[in-house]
Amino acid sequence: VTATGIPAARVAIFGVGLIGGSFALALKRAGAVQEVIGVGRRRETLERALTLGVIDRIAVTPAEALDGCDLVLLAAPVAQTPVILTSIKPYLQDGTTVTDAGSTKCDAVAAARMALGERVGQFVPGHPIAGGELHGPEAAKADLYDQRNVILTPLPENEPARLMQVQAAWEACGARVRSMPAPQHDTVLASVSHLPHMLAYALVAQIAEADDAALRFDFAGAGFRDFTRIAASSPEMWRDIALSNRDALLVEMDAYRSMLERMRAMIERSDGAALEALFALASKKRMNWTPGG
Amino acid sequence: VTATGIPAARVAIFGVGLIGGSFALALKRAGAVQEVIGVGRRRETLERALTLGVIDRIAVTPAEALDGCDLVLLAAPVAQTPVILTSIKPYLQDGTTVTDAGSTKCDAVAAARMALGERVGQFVPGHPIAGGELHGPEAAKADLYDQRNVILTPLPENEPARLMQVQAAWEACGARVRSMPAPQHDTVLASVSHLPHMLAYALVAQIAEADDAALRFDFAGAGFRDFTRIAASSPEMWRDIALSNRDALLVEMDAYRSMLERMRAMIERSDGAALEALFALASKKRMNWTPGG
Repeated sequence: VTATGIPAARVAIFGVGLIGGSFALALKRAGAVQEVIGVGRRRETLERALTLGVIDRIAVTPAEALDGCDLVLLAAPVAQTPVILTSIKPYLQDGTTVTDAGSTKCDAVAAARMALGERVGQFVPGHPIAGGELHGPEAAKADLYDQRNVILTPLPENEPARLMQVQAAWEACGARVRSMPAPQHDTVLASVSHLPHMLAYALVAQIAEADDAALRFDFAGAGFRDFTRIAASSPEMWRDIALSNRDALLVEMDAYRSMLERMRAMIERSDGAALEALFALASKKRMNWTPGG
Repeated sequence: VTATGIPAARVAIFGVGLIGGSFALALKRAGAVQEVIGVGRRRETLERALTLGVIDRIAVTPAEALDGCDLVLLAAPVAQTPVILTSIKPYLQDGTTVTDAGSTKCDAVAAARMALGERVGQFVPGHPIAGGELHGPEAAKADLYDQRNVILTPLPENEPARLMQVQAAWEACGARVRSMPAPQHDTVLASVSHLPHMLAYALVAQIAEADDAALRFDFAGAGFRDFTRIAASSPEMWRDIALSNRDALLVEMDAYRSMLERMRAMIERSDGAALEALFALASKKRMNWTPGG
């Protein structure tokens, strides 16, 4: 919390799409920011964000974006994290805290250590568990983070005041903030988020490659609709996530393959009892689950 | 269409849950039925259906259910189809047409040939592409079939008048009726419905078996919610479907495994270009798809 009494008087956001744009709108809704500065690769996207009132000003250079800035949020696809951190390092002042919204955290921590060096303690790694298949500044909304979890994976070098600043900003956005080590975050997210995205993409790709693809899509119903909703997600963003969290994702993919092989064997030998028991376990767990994210 | 001018004056429904109960309510809404008779394994379920107004009368024996009946719908889990058909055969009058709502059709056709013999032409195999994770007569609703596809897989022995009768009943329920051969139906449904159910059950079962299952479920978000919605489906019903459509399902599971292996290899060798191309194919197909079912 800065001298102005609000978590971040001036915020610079790299990547003004669904995640970054919603952060801006949520902070504005809470009166928790005075000025939001947008930075990004595509001038056109920044212009749209400006027109929509998502950001207040466009910065063309990192120097301009970082000048007098209290908080920087990286909300671009995660492959850009090392590049952005390297670009802002020369302009990073003591009073500026940097956080990110990337879906993978071990790689973000490694990138921050490499790019920020002795200033790594100014980087607080974070991940809001929120999103949607729509992207771009048009998809941004002030309530995206209401009641949603934000996971911070603090570094030993993070001073408590910096953690509090990032936590206060996310709480101003309506989110709940929780902490865990980065490797644990990456395993959990590989399991409940990254793997399902791979599985949904794989199903749609499989059907798309079938000779009778049109007929199949034609008779797909509500189950298919919900199961594959996440297969409409941004290819670039999910390419980056899959590669950034490669090791944890491969572990989960292999565990999933084993489960699918067990199920396949039950079907092949027509083992109704085993199949029903496995379905019942899943069904019960799913019925008792309520969205925490 | 019977002499009364409505598709089926008296309808007997075996299995008065979501599917059978919604058929009853939709026919009633359309004024397309005079009396709905419920039959089932569990007396308690039938009593609830009666109390809810889903059915008008409970039949205790097949003889009672079939007496003066225009149309019979089998809407019990598909493993019961042979048993039910065998039980009604002695009471099947010329004026009665039998159809079913089973998710697998080759097995229903085989069961009908075996159980009904020379009367197999009275059986019109059908499958409404509609449903939901809720079940029981409480889940039944009159609009479940509005704008949804119903697939008929006619037999060579079906007289046109019987096909028309079944088609008229489903159209009265608000559905669109389409026809295709039973093997094609089973392949298409294995691909767009049965396989996704297996995949969703497998993911939830995998997470449930992890040491840190509670933590994982705790951080699962909206993507997980939609992807696994169908994993809350009835274990008994999906056990039956998996076994009834075993051959077609195994073919699709193997094709899916190959696709997943391709994707895994791209991730393992950090082939971002191939991964993005595959995601983009799926994403584009999914975005251009609209629910037909």
